[in-house]
Formats: sequence, C-alpha cells, structure tokens
Amino acid sequence: MPTLTLLRHGQSEWNKENRFTGWVDVDLAPEGIAQAKRAGELLRERKISFDVVYTSYLQRAVKTLWEVLAATDKMWLPVTTDWRLNERHYGDLQGKNKDETRERFGAEQVQIWRRSFATPPPPAEGDASVPDERYAGVAMPNGESLKDTLERVLPCWEQVLKPVLAERNVLVVAHGNSLRALAKFLDGMDEDEIMKFEIPTGVPLVYELDGSLKVLDRKFIES
Amino acid sequence: MPTLTLLRHGQSEWNKENRFTGWVDVDLAPEGIAQAKRAGELLRERKISFDVVYTSYLQRAVKTLWEVLAATDKMWLPVTTDWRLNERHYGDLQGKNKDETRERFGAEQVQIWRRSFATPPPPAEGDASVPDERYAGVAMPNGESLKDTLERVLPCWEQVLKPVLAERNVLVVAHGNSLRALAKFLDGMDEDEIMKFEIPTGVPLVYELDGSLKVLDRKFIES
Repeated sequence: MPTLTLLRHGQSEWNKENRFTGWVDVDLAPEGIAQAKRAGELLRERKISFDVVYTSYLQRAVKTLWEVLAATDKMWLPVTTDWRLNERHYGDLQGKNKDETRERFGAEQVQIWRRSFATPPPPAEGDASVPDERYAGVAMPNGESLKDTLERVLPCWEQVLKPVLAERNVLVVAHGNSLRALAKFLDGMDEDEIMKFEIPTGVPLVYELDGSLKVLDRKFIES
Repeated sequence: MPTLTLLRHGQSEWNKENRFTGWVDVDLAPEGIAQAKRAGELLRERKISFDVVYTSYLQRAVKTLWEVLAATDKMWLPVTTDWRLNERHYGDLQGKNKDETRERFGAEQVQIWRRSFATPPPPAEGDASVPDERYAGVAMPNGESLKDTLERVLPCWEQVLKPVLAERNVLVVAHGNSLRALAKFLDGMDEDEIMKFEIPTGVPLVYELDGSLKVLDRKFIES
C-alpha cells in the first residue's frame, strides 16, 4: 500500500515579515531550516517510508527537502522539481505586507482573496513575466485563485505522482496552497472544507493509500 | 558548443584524517562546505554555464552540489544521481589510515595501489556487500583499480552525459578518481599521464567541447 507524504516548507523570511510571497523566491528563515530538520527527524523516527521525492522550483521548498534528505540519510535520491508544485501565484499582492494590504483594500476584500476558492487576487501591474530561465516555456500565471492553483497541480498529480505511487512511496515538499489543492482533491473536500484546512509549516501530512490510490488514512506527524 | 564542468567534492572528514574513503559515505568537513561554496561563486562570477547536473550516491558529492546550486541560484534544477560516479572502491583499504597502511604493507606497495592504473587494492575481508537500499541491483565492486573505475564510469558517459551534452551544458560533481577516469578518456591521456594528473578538491575543471564532443579547451578555474 503506497504512502504519500506532503510537507510544507519551513518558515521563510517573508512568512516572518507577514508578506504575501507566492512565486517570489524567498529564502528560508533560520527557524525554517530548523523546522525542516525536525520534519526529517520525525520521518526517520516514525519510519515513514519514501523512495521518490518531488519539490517545486522555489528555494524555500528545495532547501526544506535537502534538510529532510540529510536527516533521513537519503541524500542519494534524485530530486525532481516541477513548477506546478509552486505556491499559488499572488499577483499584485506578492511582496506586500498583509496588514498594509488590509488597510488599503479592506480586511473583507483581503479575506476573500485569501480564503475564497475561486476569486483570484488582482494581477501585478505592468509586465508580470519573470525574466527567469527556469520558467522558459511556462505560461506564467499572474494572480491565481486556489481553484487556478488546483487546475495546474492536478496535471502534476495525474502525469507524475500517480504513476509513481503505483510502485513507490512518495514525498512531496511544496507550499501551503499547492499542497492544500492536492489535499482537496485527495480527500474529496468541498470548497468550504478546503478553505478551513490549514497545513502548518514543517509538519508532515502522511496519506496511506490503497491500490487504487484512494485515501485509507491521513494524519499529521507531530512531535 | 557545449561546456562540461567537472567538480571534485570539498574536503571530507576522512580527507582530513588521511584515511582511504572509497565508497564509505563520509560527510564533508566544514572546510569542504566552504570550498564548495567558493566553487559555486567562481562558476557564477566566471559565468560558467550549466543546465543539467549529475552527482554520485555519496553525500560528500551531493552536499557539494547543493552548495554550488545555492551559490549559483540554480536550486530549481533537478538533481540526477548515479552510483557509477562514485569514488573508486578501495576494498580492504577503506577506512584505514594511509600512514598505517604504509607501515603495514610498505610504502612501495601502497604507492602501487594508489598510483598504478590497473592494480586493484586487496578486497575487503568477509562479506563486503553494503546492506544499503541505494545499491539494490548494483553488482557491488570490492577493490577497484583506476581501470576498473574507468570501466564503470564510461557507460555513464555514453548513456547519460554524452546524449545530454548534445544539447545542454553539464555539471558533474563527483570524486577524485571517478573524475580522473573521465578526464583520462576525454583528454586521451595514456596510463602514465593519468597517474600524474590530480584534480584538487573544490576546483572546477571546465571543458569546452566541439559539436562532436572533442575537447577544444580544458582549464581549472581558480580564484
């Protein structure tokens, strides 16, 4: 029976500063490194198995995965990266402080952007394309709802994760919203349920699946 | 014209202790981490391009690669690992101090094991198989000459590196002897030449190749 472990990256510098991050490639904070190590130690202690690992294109997720590989003595595993596991793209909100955004647009509007399933934030003004070789060939989003995020995470599930889970145990290290999108799909949550569902940074969420990849059990692994 | 960069991992704990390492999965020393960072900074400063990265199954190489990816802002690149890039397997010498080995077997014999092209060291006694999931399916060597090492590195060149170099620039982070084996092949060195050829830890060796992957130029990049 395959195991799928989802892990949200440790705290980043902008989580600490309470800023919308999205696709901005912010580094882990020192606390985030410590959370990532601890997550790896928990996976080792609880003997949560994984043979194949995936992460996003963003360094806070990649570095979290590296800490987990080091803590579990799995540094020899190849690492596959996929932009479709990136955080929700926050459009014009990226880089902005959450409190200042509330003052400017009103708390209610910001809550809608953050917690409505299908409402995207406003797009970034001007040219939102990222002059970054890693996204060559990617149709860059500019302001995604969680629904938009789900729509690009699902092909990654279908094309990449699902075939591998037929034979191997998988670890995915990614982001609050790309992982919530995946959890919504796996658990069959409705729009209200997913909006209340939070994945804390650095706390592994372990799914036990059956042979047809239906969820048998799901639990957070905490110390 | 493709670029192929070879990088030997930074100093490991056993390099410092003057012990034969081989396939023992020893960690980088703090100086090794610093060398790896510096190598990454040099590659960035000199604008040495790479789009695809490979390393061995051994953590001193993997961690060196991670430092290079962090220093060059390339953490989003997938990482492919290949056991055929592992260090030469030192058989019974693995874990032994080089000076003590000279006292026991004589300096001349140890020099032959270290510097003869085709003489393997004695095999480890007893069961040399490594009870390690990463080598499931690998016909484990037990005491390799440089010639033996070359014979398992070459299929990695033919099957993995060569096809990719037709279209991309490649970075390989590996070990003193697996990289010397590759250099012998690329540069067409004879047995005397390769025995005198040393690749220092943490110093990138950059090959400029032509369209048929013949060597146009080769240089060490030093600060």
